[in-house]
Amino acid sequence: MYKLVEIDGGVCAAEGFFADGVSAGLKPNGAKDMAFVYAKSMCEIATTFTTNKMAAAPIKHFKAMGEFQTNFVLINAKNANAMTGSAGVEDIKEILSTLPEVAKNPVMSSTGVIGVRLPKEKIIAGTKLFDLNKRESNAAAEAIMTTDRFSKQKAYRIELADGSSFSIGAMAKGAGMINPAMATMLCFITTDANVSKAEMQSILNEKVEVTFNAASVDGDTSTNDTVMLLSNAKSGAFHKEAFAEALENIMRFLAREMVRDGEGANKLVTYKVSGAKDNKEAEIVAKALSNSLLVKTALYGEDPNWGRIASTVGASGAEAYEEKLTISFDDVCVYERGNIYFDAAMEAKAAEVMKKDAFTISCDLGIADGRFEAYGCDLGYEYVKINADYRT
Amino acid sequence: MYKLVEIDGGVCAAEGFFADGVSAGLKPNGAKDMAFVYAKSMCEIATTFTTNKMAAAPIKHFKAMGEFQTNFVLINAKNANAMTGSAGVEDIKEILSTLPEVAKNPVMSSTGVIGVRLPKEKIIAGTKLFDLNKRESNAAAEAIMTTDRFSKQKAYRIELADGSSFSIGAMAKGAGMINPAMATMLCFITTDANVSKAEMQSILNEKVEVTFNAASVDGDTSTNDTVMLLSNAKSGAFHKEAFAEALENIMRFLAREMVRDGEGANKLVTYKVSGAKDNKEAEIVAKALSNSLLVKTALYGEDPNWGRIASTVGASGAEAYEEKLTISFDDVCVYERGNIYFDAAMEAKAAEVMKKDAFTISCDLGIADGRFEAYGCDLGYEYVKINADYRT
Repeated sequence: MYKLVEIDGGVCAAEGFFADGVSAGLKPNGAKDMAFVYAKSMCEIATTFTTNKMAAAPIKHFKAMGEFQTNFVLINAKNANAMTGSAGVEDIKEILSTLPEVAKNPVMSSTGVIGVRLPKEKIIAGTKLFDLNKRESNAAAEAIMTTDRFSKQKAYRIELADGSSFSIGAMAKGAGMINPAMATMLCFITTDANVSKAEMQSILNEKVEVTFNAASVDGDTSTNDTVMLLSNAKSGAFHKEAFAEALENIMRFLAREMVRDGEGANKLVTYKVSGAKDNKEAEIVAKALSNSLLVKTALYGEDPNWGRIASTVGASGAEAYEEKLTISFDDVCVYERGNIYFDAAMEAKAAEVMKKDAFTISCDLGIADGRFEAYGCDLGYEYVKINADYRT
Repeated sequence: MYKLVEIDGGVCAAEGFFADGVSAGLKPNGAKDMAFVYAKSMCEIATTFTTNKMAAAPIKHFKAMGEFQTNFVLINAKNANAMTGSAGVEDIKEILSTLPEVAKNPVMSSTGVIGVRLPKEKIIAGTKLFDLNKRESNAAAEAIMTTDRFSKQKAYRIELADGSSFSIGAMAKGAGMINPAMATMLCFITTDANVSKAEMQSILNEKVEVTFNAASVDGDTSTNDTVMLLSNAKSGAFHKEAFAEALENIMRFLAREMVRDGEGANKLVTYKVSGAKDNKEAEIVAKALSNSLLVKTALYGEDPNWGRIASTVGASGAEAYEEKLTISFDDVCVYERGNIYFDAAMEAKAAEVMKKDAFTISCDLGIADGRFEAYGCDLGYEYVKINADYRT
């Protein structure tokens, strides 16, 4: 009925979208630190923003604009423009007012240190370096990185049965302050699908829950989290299920990439919880596991310490019973409904699984059919180093 | 009306209580690893146990005993006897059945690794080393340590206006798996106050909330958390307010000592939250701060990164507003209701505060009168080292 074809081009993959990254001197090492996403025609926008009550100035500015279409997003790294009050919002207005006239209802998005006013002059000078004809998705994806080790992009062309097609492409950043409470990172998605604003928003809301909101690096919800989906309808084509599937694939890929790139992280772990009272309780357990310091440090030590898994399940608040629980590392079952399969041989097998870069920890609560999958990483010395030294 | 006098003697400070610690070979380095608390006459017991659904065998055994008095508590370190099912409870019964006949309705308490059966023979052999006439509170407090760097004891004699007096003494352990969800550690308190079981339990419940439950090392709630308060009524004296005040002082001291001794911790931080909508919301904020990885690593880096404080307040879920919030490090105010007092001079002052071993971070939410005080520590390389290597 339809086919998802992975393509290159990230946020420029969909027809009519342009992007680039430039160096404006915000990052001390001269790396790219400002990006734009531009469309020649106006776009519908769907968004999800942080649930943090200290939402940053770009989010306040966006929300104050009410209902609108746009064709321009300005992004800077290194300064979050958070806790800067109404002055922070005025700074955004002043910066956006200097953009070329083709930018209609432009919006801004920021990431970096909290509590410092934006370096307006540097940012305005940076925007003068933009060439709106560029389709440099790699450069844009690099420019929005902070402590990220690699950039994150993904795009699909969706080919429909009638021969028509549309595309969705995205870029994201995020390596710290990643937590299930909201899509705690920046993600920009563009599409030429002919989708209505309402439908786009509703699909985005649904898919954010099982992708970005299922990912955790450190349990801290940032002030700036933003997922922004822009549609210019250029392709004239649309298919709801295909669009939803492609969007979910893209966001899950980027969410997992963010966790894999978690500050100091070496392991990407999928927590597959099943048999819970309901899906909500499965989600509580999966997120408790992905946020437990004791589990995260055991992962770092490559220690199949299943007792910490059991303890975290028990501490999560969800309904759980010692005699109904089953715990596996990939396909190595170490505890099953009261039976401890953890002799030296089994421990060695489980330890082998934990040496892998990516694996699954499964917990079957044995109660009912609730299930949820969350994504987490280990926590090692490097996380401490990065975060003890972040501002310096 | 009454006077609290700090005295030595820990868990043996109250009249008629005996305790000691011995080495039974559970700790590989030959350190003391088993302790008892014994009273010649029967005691009323008040307890609070973990909320973890995977409660360990000693807790299941205790709860199954129903209403009872006891005069003997057996404690072992190095093995938690958790996730061991009904076999774990049978092990306890077997061990306790070998105790001398003077031990009436004995109970057991364990701490250590989860998911391994108790080494019964070693433990039974260990109990043979007990001399029930010993009043070696220091040895008992040492024997219950796991990753603790120092032992924790406190005792008061309460002198009443009529010349009568009673005493309360305690010992505690706990350096990891410490979290506000319950008093996540072991604490044994003895008193010769003439207090009823019901009153003792009610005062204990109230005071645990603002002491042990306000302390966090790592946000993980253990399977074995236990606070046990034994009263033999020997003094014949009682005064409710005095008893409550002494108990609160003892438990707050031990809770703060546990945080100060948090795994790898170098700093004891008091999070003083005021101006919240109500006390419950103040508690949510204070505990969010004490559990935030980004705050904890900033403490470790001695970086007065107030933006992370603000972000954590905002992420906590409590009602909060950027323009009403005030943040101070001890008496150095860095952010006040929208004003950022964070020039180089102020940053240097705040950094000086953070170099101290103990200091206070205050957050006034500026909404109403809700207040709560929580106790937390930093998180550094040592925490990772201890927890990545725990079982090995």
